[in-house]
Amino acid sequence: METIWDRKWDELILVALNEDIGSGDVTTLSTVPPDADASGVFLAKEAGVICGLSICSRTFALLDPRIRIKSRVQEGAWVEANEVLAVIEGPSQGILMGERVSLNFLRHLSGIATQTRLAVQAVEGTKAHISDTRKTTPGLRSIEKYAVRTGGGTNHRFNLSDGILIKDNHIRAAGGIKQAVDRARKGGSHLLKIEVETETIEQIEEALEAGADVIMLDNMSLLQMAEAVRLIAGRAIVEASGNMADQDLRAVAETGVDLISIGALTHSVRALDISLKFE
Amino acid sequence: METIWDRKWDELILVALNEDIGSGDVTTLSTVPPDADASGVFLAKEAGVICGLSICSRTFALLDPRIRIKSRVQEGAWVEANEVLAVIEGPSQGILMGERVSLNFLRHLSGIATQTRLAVQAVEGTKAHISDTRKTTPGLRSIEKYAVRTGGGTNHRFNLSDGILIKDNHIRAAGGIKQAVDRARKGGSHLLKIEVETETIEQIEEALEAGADVIMLDNMSLLQMAEAVRLIAGRAIVEASGNMADQDLRAVAETGVDLISIGALTHSVRALDISLKFE
Amino acid sequence: METIWDRKWDELILVALNEDIGSGDVTTLSTVPPDADASGVFLAKEAGVICGLSICSRTFALLDPRIRIKSRVQEGAWVEANEVLAVIEGPSQGILMGERVSLNFLRHLSGIATQTRLAVQAVEGTKAHISDTRKTTPGLRSIEKYAVRTGGGTNHRFNLSDGILIKDNHIRAAGGIKQAVDRARKGGSHLLKIEVETETIEQIEEALEAGADVIMLDNMSLLQMAEAVRLIAGRAIVEASGNMADQDLRAVAETGVDLISIGALTHSVRALDISLKFE
Amino acid sequence: METIWDRKWDELILVALNEDIGSGDVTTLSTVPPDADASGVFLAKEAGVICGLSICSRTFALLDPRIRIKSRVQEGAWVEANEVLAVIEGPSQGILMGERVSLNFLRHLSGIATQTRLAVQAVEGTKAHISDTRKTTPGLRSIEKYAVRTGGGTNHRFNLSDGILIKDNHIRAAGGIKQAVDRARKGGSHLLKIEVETETIEQIEEALEAGADVIMLDNMSLLQMAEAVRLIAGRAIVEASGNMADQDLRAVAETGVDLISIGALTHSVRALDISLKFE
Amino acid sequence: METIWDRKWDELILVALNEDIGSGDVTTLSTVPPDADASGVFLAKEAGVICGLSICSRTFALLDPRIRIKSRVQEGAWVEANEVLAVIEGPSQGILMGERVSLNFLRHLSGIATQTRLAVQAVEGTKAHISDTRKTTPGLRSIEKYAVRTGGGTNHRFNLSDGILIKDNHIRAAGGIKQAVDRARKGGSHLLKIEVETETIEQIEEALEAGADVIMLDNMSLLQMAEAVRLIAGRAIVEASGNMADQDLRAVAETGVDLISIGALTHSVRALDISLKFE
Amino acid sequence: METIWDRKWDELILVALNEDIGSGDVTTLSTVPPDADASGVFLAKEAGVICGLSICSRTFALLDPRIRIKSRVQEGAWVEANEVLAVIEGPSQGILMGERVSLNFLRHLSGIATQTRLAVQAVEGTKAHISDTRKTTPGLRSIEKYAVRTGGGTNHRFNLSDGILIKDNHIRAAGGIKQAVDRARKGGSHLLKIEVETETIEQIEEALEAGADVIMLDNMSLLQMAEAVRLIAGRAIVEASGNMADQDLRAVAETGVDLISIGALTHSVRALDISLKFE
Repeated sequence: METIWDRKWDELILVALNEDIGSGDVTTLSTVPPDADASGVFLAKEAGVICGLSICSRTFALLDPRIRIKSRVQEGAWVEANEVLAVIEGPSQGILMGERVSLNFLRHLSGIATQTRLAVQAVEGTKAHISDTRKTTPGLRSIEKYAVRTGGGTNHRFNLSDGILIKDNHIRAAGGIKQAVDRARKGGSHLLKIEVETETIEQIEEALEAGADVIMLDNMSLLQMAEAVRLIAGRAIVEASGNMADQDLRAVAETGVDLISIGALTHSVRALDISLKFE
Repeated sequence: METIWDRKWDELILVALNEDIGSGDVTTLSTVPPDADASGVFLAKEAGVICGLSICSRTFALLDPRIRIKSRVQEGAWVEANEVLAVIEGPSQGILMGERVSLNFLRHLSGIATQTRLAVQAVEGTKAHISDTRKTTPGLRSIEKYAVRTGGGTNHRFNLSDGILIKDNHIRAAGGIKQAVDRARKGGSHLLKIEVETETIEQIEEALEAGADVIMLDNMSLLQMAEAVRLIAGRAIVEASGNMADQDLRAVAETGVDLISIGALTHSVRALDISLKFE
Repeated sequence: METIWDRKWDELILVALNEDIGSGDVTTLSTVPPDADASGVFLAKEAGVICGLSICSRTFALLDPRIRIKSRVQEGAWVEANEVLAVIEGPSQGILMGERVSLNFLRHLSGIATQTRLAVQAVEGTKAHISDTRKTTPGLRSIEKYAVRTGGGTNHRFNLSDGILIKDNHIRAAGGIKQAVDRARKGGSHLLKIEVETETIEQIEEALEAGADVIMLDNMSLLQMAEAVRLIAGRAIVEASGNMADQDLRAVAETGVDLISIGALTHSVRALDISLKFE
Repeated sequence: METIWDRKWDELILVALNEDIGSGDVTTLSTVPPDADASGVFLAKEAGVICGLSICSRTFALLDPRIRIKSRVQEGAWVEANEVLAVIEGPSQGILMGERVSLNFLRHLSGIATQTRLAVQAVEGTKAHISDTRKTTPGLRSIEKYAVRTGGGTNHRFNLSDGILIKDNHIRAAGGIKQAVDRARKGGSHLLKIEVETETIEQIEEALEAGADVIMLDNMSLLQMAEAVRLIAGRAIVEASGNMADQDLRAVAETGVDLISIGALTHSVRALDISLKFE
Repeated sequence: METIWDRKWDELILVALNEDIGSGDVTTLSTVPPDADASGVFLAKEAGVICGLSICSRTFALLDPRIRIKSRVQEGAWVEANEVLAVIEGPSQGILMGERVSLNFLRHLSGIATQTRLAVQAVEGTKAHISDTRKTTPGLRSIEKYAVRTGGGTNHRFNLSDGILIKDNHIRAAGGIKQAVDRARKGGSHLLKIEVETETIEQIEEALEAGADVIMLDNMSLLQMAEAVRLIAGRAIVEASGNMADQDLRAVAETGVDLISIGALTHSVRALDISLKFE
Repeated sequence: METIWDRKWDELILVALNEDIGSGDVTTLSTVPPDADASGVFLAKEAGVICGLSICSRTFALLDPRIRIKSRVQEGAWVEANEVLAVIEGPSQGILMGERVSLNFLRHLSGIATQTRLAVQAVEGTKAHISDTRKTTPGLRSIEKYAVRTGGGTNHRFNLSDGILIKDNHIRAAGGIKQAVDRARKGGSHLLKIEVETETIEQIEEALEAGADVIMLDNMSLLQMAEAVRLIAGRAIVEASGNMADQDLRAVAETGVDLISIGALTHSVRALDISLKFE
């Protein structure tokens, strides 16, 4: 059952497989008979959120469709150390050749989903959403943003064409916040809102006057954020941004912002420890 | 001056640019005049090893060849916080569109190079080398291994075709260490050495008897590693492996191993904080 | 000077050249000496808006960089029959091989720009903008939307990911306009507005209550549109849609709608008659 | 059942789908549950020849193979307004995401087939065939020429390598019709005939003397064409060409020409009005 | 100066370079300093026709544009053993990395050109042309047919779309030679001639009656060929075919055939011995 | 059942099919009805080793999956003239369109396997292995090395990244054999052995002292090779190389070398004569 989504991710999986297999797995091809079968389990070595089970399956499907994987947990589930994530069986050669690539995906995505879940839990009960940024690993944006969703976060714009975010340099080039917002409204599609990045209360006021739909508070202190929320008073969506991974997220959320975007979710990923254990 | 190496990395850079630009940067195209110029500096926000300057240049060259970047530091240099890494000037639109992608590369690679350098310094004066693994980010193996070299580390095999590493499952499938090594020697090219992964002293003895060229000590204690080195006594190269990022690397090196391979160098990267500051 | 925009269009141009040249232009290669030079002019055979001059140049640059083209009119200019658009000179073989492909682009895009310009002129003085749709020729969306802009029109969303447009079937699946809008607000990025397609006054009221940012009037009569505009009263942007090519555009504009989207601009293109005349 | 023909067209379909879906259909993904099913019919909104049913099916197969389409009419059939062309059923999300692309193909190709059929009917009973040209939409030549055949027309050469057509500029470069034909005969494969484009009776005589297999009458009046046919007297195949869409095709055919080639069949397509109606 | 022809061959050259370089030339990168320069000569080790000099240059240009090659002989020249073909100079690393690929091309193509030249010389003074077939190495057809032309041969059809050649199985499927020729005339473009493969005098007569433009004599004896030529008497072009590499080509030519096609020119290539000698 | 190996070869097969089919097989499409079926046999016209049966099957599977092929002999079997290799049945059009490409692969690979088998048989009973080189046809290395294995040979390094082979120029650039070997040991992965190319006894001694793992004897006489083997005395693997196709292979093997590498196995292939006979 290959939908277009499989196909999109297939390209990335095939790049990874070709990169890892090169002209052939000399160890496996010489030591393991082609007709040998094996079975094993994917095992969490530490607690966290599992993400990437279908990419893992797809990796083996592309290597050898005779390999079968059955998930034992749901995508997005929190698992404990030593929990079995999935069982795999089929030709040994294919399983050994796909082991590293499948784990590289699974561990990376689960690492992202886990950090996202922890952030989401930190702000639970407030109205704040946890969001990612465009600080993603080159080539992996689509699956990294999927991992953020799997962890319970929301996605900021996917790329430069599906959201207007006016930063310092756009403002300077346009000659002021008002001019920049006006130009963006005229130049962008009528279906896009306009977000303005601000660093001071004055800029927030200008942005509101210019009719910004969303206001980003960049690198502000908790006190400044609280003041900003009061000033904006629902006239625009408010996003807190800037090294948020080092902040007390709950405190940030309690200032009343609508969105907290955290670059470290995808730019500084700690892989979740998962291994493939043969039986 | 486009050599074949540029071309190889170009593919990855173009994937990243297309992923980030989508159908066009609506903000920049509407707010910044096409004929406006800008200049700025790439700035380290924290200390570390710089890696990726040429990928950064190449990113802008692919976007708009009128953009010029001059490096202020050498690739692989250790820089301090607030140090200027490079200056950039050219059409504002192109600089703004390439900012995120160039930083995503530069920060990721510099993060790897920095962690590698720290590991290399930890074992300085011993004979141990610091090496990477195949636990790399899908699609980025080539540039991540380059970052490890830039940090002063050495590269383990690039992929499954340029090195023989016999693991537990190969041994089981072949019916023993001796059988596996014999088959690998027969099946592999005469230009490849044979490495065997071991977990016990008995396995090390079997591997030596089978004529292994390299012996990997997997997840052993410091005492076990020291004993293993004494037993092997120069008859094979010795590699220490298994969650090495959590070990006292100097202590490991002092057991006398030749090589310490660390997966975390590439699977759990913390991006180095670098930004592009317009002037 | 190859920016990333050139590269994006290059793919399409190369597809077209390969499609037209096949394994070689047997006529030209056998009858025209490789060292023969030629010169000629691109000539409008009828009046209209010129679009695609740079794609035309790029086509020849990709064939043979020794061919030089100098434009005599501006991209987007209205030209009269028999006006010279550009002069070309260089190796005869390359010019003959690129003639058809360059004209196929130039005529198609100029056809779109011309129809757009006529529509824009029809509504001049009203506040209505003329917009395209997603009814574009497969593979040509990017350049066709460029032709619409060149003709003076605005672009509707580029694709399904950079705008939310709730249609009949989305409403039915969600269980009502309100539910659909709520879900879209929650599921989409905070940078996207929400447009709802309506066919009746009741639907318009529901959409307004649900907080739609944009309301599309689908296949309504002039009277209905006028009533809709009165009802909406500035609370949402209003788009008129549905076989608009067959309508009196000025009358539609005078109902007070903000946007008139016309599928025929790109789905039923009449090529502008342009030829390449050798001298 | 994927033959190589499917694969060839798949590339174009995938380009179109990726172009239209971008990073995801935000409206459908947020408003329609993944497990919802839908059914609908493709409906002709006006009379014409249907072409592209299998491309339409293939579009949905590539999106999600669970979607099933059953044709109700034959490819190439003439249908009346309001006739059902095909029924579709399967997961709602996939159907909604493929709707626009499938219709863009179906409407464009049916538009071409319809115009071709009308031209073929105009010359019915004469010996003249209706043929296309190389004035096709960039990237779509293969499917557009298929649409012409579906409408009952014949295909002129596919590209510059599978037919020799000597035009004015080739003649000038070679130094005369005789020289050009001689060179083409020597340079081309022995399996290709030689066609010469002529504008005067003198040129026709020269071409006949040179041994041309096919003679094109370019932009001649009905009287000139009739005279040309008499002069050629079966010694070569005769093709009428040059703005034929604006001519009385029957009158042209009755001059006795063998072939009438019409660029407008593919360069100025009016899409046939077809829609997808959900039930 | 990159024309579209360079680009076409570039793909093949890049495939070959990537195939040969893998993840890097470990020997050269470790033993040769990056700033070392070298110079050398391409040397014929045996006599023959040289073909592929520009592909050889292009290979190095793609590796490193600082490498310069100057030809000392003309493409297509006959050279003697020990003759210098070209001189090369530039960075040592690039020269060493491109050596094997450039020689693989040069030797293969020169081998084809040499065999072709020998065949052409064998029939010199007769009217027979030497031609290739579609028995080419997968992926190399374009450059192999170029080598045949360089050797003085002519090219048969490039592929199945630019020539009609009716073989035994087509005849059987159509129900006879006449039927097959009629169908082909109707189904093929009016610019293609029709060739019929024959094995007997009866078939030749049928083909002539059916109006075949070209008649292939398949695996006939010298006597049969002479009789066939007499029978056909200029009413069709005559091609001799079938293991022609094992025949006395001059004797075949003297039967009066127009064309002798030889599969072995490309299916059984003996590389010409050429080496790169450093100075 | 598509494993990743099929996919790797698919690219090459699709290139070959596209190259051969162009815009369509005009002969077959016009003369053979789409619903006609055919059956036939692949027949050896001379004795040899068969290689490429699965590529042959795959070629037809990619053309039209309704075509079925059943092998009658094993891959790698020695067959006699007139032996049936496989039977094929399915739609006539697909079989006719795939005939040439499938034979081009089968004949080329069987030619390589046959020459390899003959060389292997020549040295039977000695310890010498027959090996290929990097002198392969551009783009076909992977399948040509497969054919060598099928013929009973072993593969030398696949490319420049999976083996270290120090040649004359590396030695010169490094300043001597010892320096070159030291640098290679430091620069290469710890899993790669080091081979040194030698032309004299002195070089062999230097290579042994430098610790070379493998020593290549380049273009030595039988007497020199015998002396070299005595000198090396098991301290390194010994490879004989240099125009080995022209040598008495048994005599070379009896000097005691471990490996004989023969470039002509892949650079000067004589296709095995195989045809497809319809029934």
